[in-house]
Amino acid sequence: MKKLDELIEVFSKLQGVGKKSATRLAFDILNKNKSEIDRLIFIIQDTYNSIKPCKICNSLTENEICDVCSSDLRDKSIICVVETPRDVIAFEKANVYKGLYHVLGGKIDPLNDITPDKLNIESLLDRIDENVKEIILAMSSDIEGESTMMYLSNILSDKNIVVSRIASGIPIGTNIEYVDTLTLNLSILGRRNIDK
Amino acid sequence: MKKLDELIEVFSKLQGVGKKSATRLAFDILNKNKSEIDRLIFIIQDTYNSIKPCKICNSLTENEICDVCSSDLRDKSIICVVETPRDVIAFEKANVYKGLYHVLGGKIDPLNDITPDKLNIESLLDRIDENVKEIILAMSSDIEGESTMMYLSNILSDKNIVVSRIASGIPIGTNIEYVDTLTLNLSILGRRNIDK
Repeated sequence: MKKLDELIEVFSKLQGVGKKSATRLAFDILNKNKSEIDRLIFIIQDTYNSIKPCKICNSLTENEICDVCSSDLRDKSIICVVETPRDVIAFEKANVYKGLYHVLGGKIDPLNDITPDKLNIESLLDRIDENVKEIILAMSSDIEGESTMMYLSNILSDKNIVVSRIASGIPIGTNIEYVDTLTLNLSILGRRNIDK
Repeated sequence: MKKLDELIEVFSKLQGVGKKSATRLAFDILNKNKSEIDRLIFIIQDTYNSIKPCKICNSLTENEICDVCSSDLRDKSIICVVETPRDVIAFEKANVYKGLYHVLGGKIDPLNDITPDKLNIESLLDRIDENVKEIILAMSSDIEGESTMMYLSNILSDKNIVVSRIASGIPIGTNIEYVDTLTLNLSILGRRNIDK
């Protein structure tokens, strides 16, 4: 059936959906009743049309300015630089960090044609005024993440602000014997004294 | 963001999609451009509206009668009874079986309130005329599949036709040491002589 194949193909182009999951999704769609399909389509359209990047930090929002940027309760002297809006949501769920964010929209990756000018770096520099005291770099610690953090710390070095990066180490609840060697080494290098 | 949560929730109701995959799908949707979203929505609607059960075998088709039922090349003396349209597609891909199909729409599962009257059993009996010589039962070999096959072979026993079931055994390419004990036993019980 040509149409079914088309539906499977369009699903398999979604992130993290392989051929088998796409087939399962397509058959599940065919099994649903009309009102469920209408609701699915309405919500996809409605969400897609109403959520856009925050004018300040590029995180996602239903308004012009996101909840974090427009809040009076956030510490406006710290900006945490992350790759994607999903990272913002992860930090917000963790509920410890109370500063602002800046979403780069990715990390420097020349092999995939992502050069610094394709990331929201210019708008980050524009945000740095006398109120900003610290920039926290929170990229993932792979090669692209590391080079992005190195690039940013370089161009931020002539500003009069602290530039820091989030800690690497053993995740809570993980058995040490299963942790990769690089993380183990970083956990030793990043060790800190225990407060007495 | 309420709308984003709604989108994640509606995705997580799709078969085989957990909370994490639903979140990934939702963010992927937000990342796509307008024309990709329009195409996704068009194809979901178009496929949903054009594919329906075949009037004869209940498999899925874009027409009134599916390709198998309307073909002159199929052996109309054998009907293979399966649970879902996906099973039909799997057999068709295997490209050996040349008879007809009948889709039950599930298997007998009283605990989940699926009694025989909720399956397409009546329409199967209606199809049995003097042309039909054999019914192949092709349910999965779990408890519900087994009881469905038992139920069907009982009600078919007074018809003058052969009732058979597909073979259980070791899948091709599978290392015997990894096969579960029940399948191993079935592979011994179902052994056949090697033609000389």
